[in-house]
Amino acid sequence: MTITISIDCMGGDHGPSVTIPAALSFLKKHDDVHLILVGLDATLRAELKKHRAESHPRLTLKNATEVVEMDDPLEIALRKKKDSSMRVAVELVKDGRANASVSAGNTGALMAISRYVLKTMAGVDRPAICSIMPNQKNGPTYMLDLGANVDCEPHHLHQFAIMGSVLCSAMEHIPRPTIGLLNVGTEDIKGNDLVKATGELLRADHERGQLNFHGNVEGNDIFKGTVDVVVCDGFVGNVTLKAVEGLSRFVKSVFKESIFSMAGALLARKSLKKLNPERYNGAGLLGLKGLVFKSHGGANAYAFEWALQRAYDAAKYDVLEQLSALIAELMPTSPGEERQA
Amino acid sequence: MTITISIDCMGGDHGPSVTIPAALSFLKKHDDVHLILVGLDATLRAELKKHRAESHPRLTLKNATEVVEMDDPLEIALRKKKDSSMRVAVELVKDGRANASVSAGNTGALMAISRYVLKTMAGVDRPAICSIMPNQKNGPTYMLDLGANVDCEPHHLHQFAIMGSVLCSAMEHIPRPTIGLLNVGTEDIKGNDLVKATGELLRADHERGQLNFHGNVEGNDIFKGTVDVVVCDGFVGNVTLKAVEGLSRFVKSVFKESIFSMAGALLARKSLKKLNPERYNGAGLLGLKGLVFKSHGGANAYAFEWALQRAYDAAKYDVLEQLSALIAELMPTSPGEERQA
Repeated sequence: MTITISIDCMGGDHGPSVTIPAALSFLKKHDDVHLILVGLDATLRAELKKHRAESHPRLTLKNATEVVEMDDPLEIALRKKKDSSMRVAVELVKDGRANASVSAGNTGALMAISRYVLKTMAGVDRPAICSIMPNQKNGPTYMLDLGANVDCEPHHLHQFAIMGSVLCSAMEHIPRPTIGLLNVGTEDIKGNDLVKATGELLRADHERGQLNFHGNVEGNDIFKGTVDVVVCDGFVGNVTLKAVEGLSRFVKSVFKESIFSMAGALLARKSLKKLNPERYNGAGLLGLKGLVFKSHGGANAYAFEWALQRAYDAAKYDVLEQLSALIAELMPTSPGEERQA
Repeated sequence: MTITISIDCMGGDHGPSVTIPAALSFLKKHDDVHLILVGLDATLRAELKKHRAESHPRLTLKNATEVVEMDDPLEIALRKKKDSSMRVAVELVKDGRANASVSAGNTGALMAISRYVLKTMAGVDRPAICSIMPNQKNGPTYMLDLGANVDCEPHHLHQFAIMGSVLCSAMEHIPRPTIGLLNVGTEDIKGNDLVKATGELLRADHERGQLNFHGNVEGNDIFKGTVDVVVCDGFVGNVTLKAVEGLSRFVKSVFKESIFSMAGALLARKSLKKLNPERYNGAGLLGLKGLVFKSHGGANAYAFEWALQRAYDAAKYDVLEQLSALIAELMPTSPGEERQA
């Protein structure tokens, strides 16, 4: 089976100068992949020419006349720029011409366009953003929601747990991933009203043998690798993710302070590699009727290729099918979904 | 003026083997300090003997027959162990015999005992925990609340902002510290209901010239040093703090992986020093009618000494007076406070 991925080549801080080299490198590594490059035709052709890759049997160009800028308000992205590379790339998924789409553009715009174009999956009230972080057990920790939903109810977090579990299971080949609820302590009685009520829902699922709920976890458990999937609301997830990114940048800057610390970083580079955030690029927008992955806006070609890899894996391992099957089993169709469908 | 600090010598993972050497070292550095060591008399004397410091003109021993264990439930700590070293140390502040108290014991127990013994300051609904983090501008970022209040209303966050501003101003000698509201984006319209409503209160204060509100900040701004004080609810603060601690431990463990990375860390040690969390030990319990500081439970003597230093500074720079003055100016006496007083 060929896996077709549509790429919003104009998105991100660097646009085609990053997305196209990444696409070409990815194409070389996978002979079962077909890529659709979406963007301003002349710009794409010029970049391809630089790499002497004007034509390739598994590469298609798709013209899109507009670009969603990183600071475009949602309305502009959604209502005005109807021929943006971001939107056209997602529409290719909707039309069944691509199995997944990848963009490094504005996260809010990508989520809004994806919800509008693809619609939400039956049984899901709100899509969520799921990414991975490295952990001390040398595995990734899946974490969601990372910012799509800043005000959540317990049933939203419950759905995030289901979605994260399916994504992790399919991508990592773990039959029953362990799920942790991000909290201020591990005891069941700990936490704010939201997580206490969510804990009850997850424990009930666990007792029925449906989800592998480990219990509450704390912030440090993300990096310990205590569980496979960490669930939280989008406010907490976004703040935590950015704080962690901020600390990483701080550590990096400290190593650049003197010739000694630079030499130290050089000596330790093999070990430090596992902390490299580029290796963990590519967040899934889960709960939509189609696969969309978001690359970090500042990603370089190496990092963008990792986002392509995740989209490829998600399509190959049938995340969408597995997700709708488990959602149908565990979630009665919710009123929210009916309104949207 | 002599500053008297009462020390819960039995608290923390290591008890007197850490607290007493730290106390003795601190005593040497400050000739205007008097320390009251609280704990099991025989245990304290034995530890002092080890250091050949059985008597010192600025050292007093205060016997307490019980110890709050790290895993004691709140009720046990508060209702049953009425002669615990933690409680006796806080009571010395209440009785005016100490200017501040320091404990490395169970955070929940320390907060509960401090609230019970000292009571909440007029105008404050809920005390908060405020700590500092290193930032890229070589200054500390003050952050609160770090876990005392997991369900907050806008007026609670508003009070946290006032308290954090006063602490930072007094300790760092900054006349009008900048305050940032931790959020998922910097624009005013961003965030969940709680922070949007809090932002309105803080903007109003800023317009009246009362608080130096910078606006919303994101997780990475904690380490960038964008503002002097970062305000959030205790759930977000606790999760973020622990995630950051977890990442730090992960980075440390990576440096221990091979002889090369260990050599690298050694080379970079001078630069890495500024990231050392021990240097930032000592969180203030703010909003009480007395000064209480919390050391990390696992602190070594060097780190515990830093917690003593913060308690000393807070007493010396009259944080309590300044706090009640600003609270009285900005906060009408709240119903919550009246119930408690």
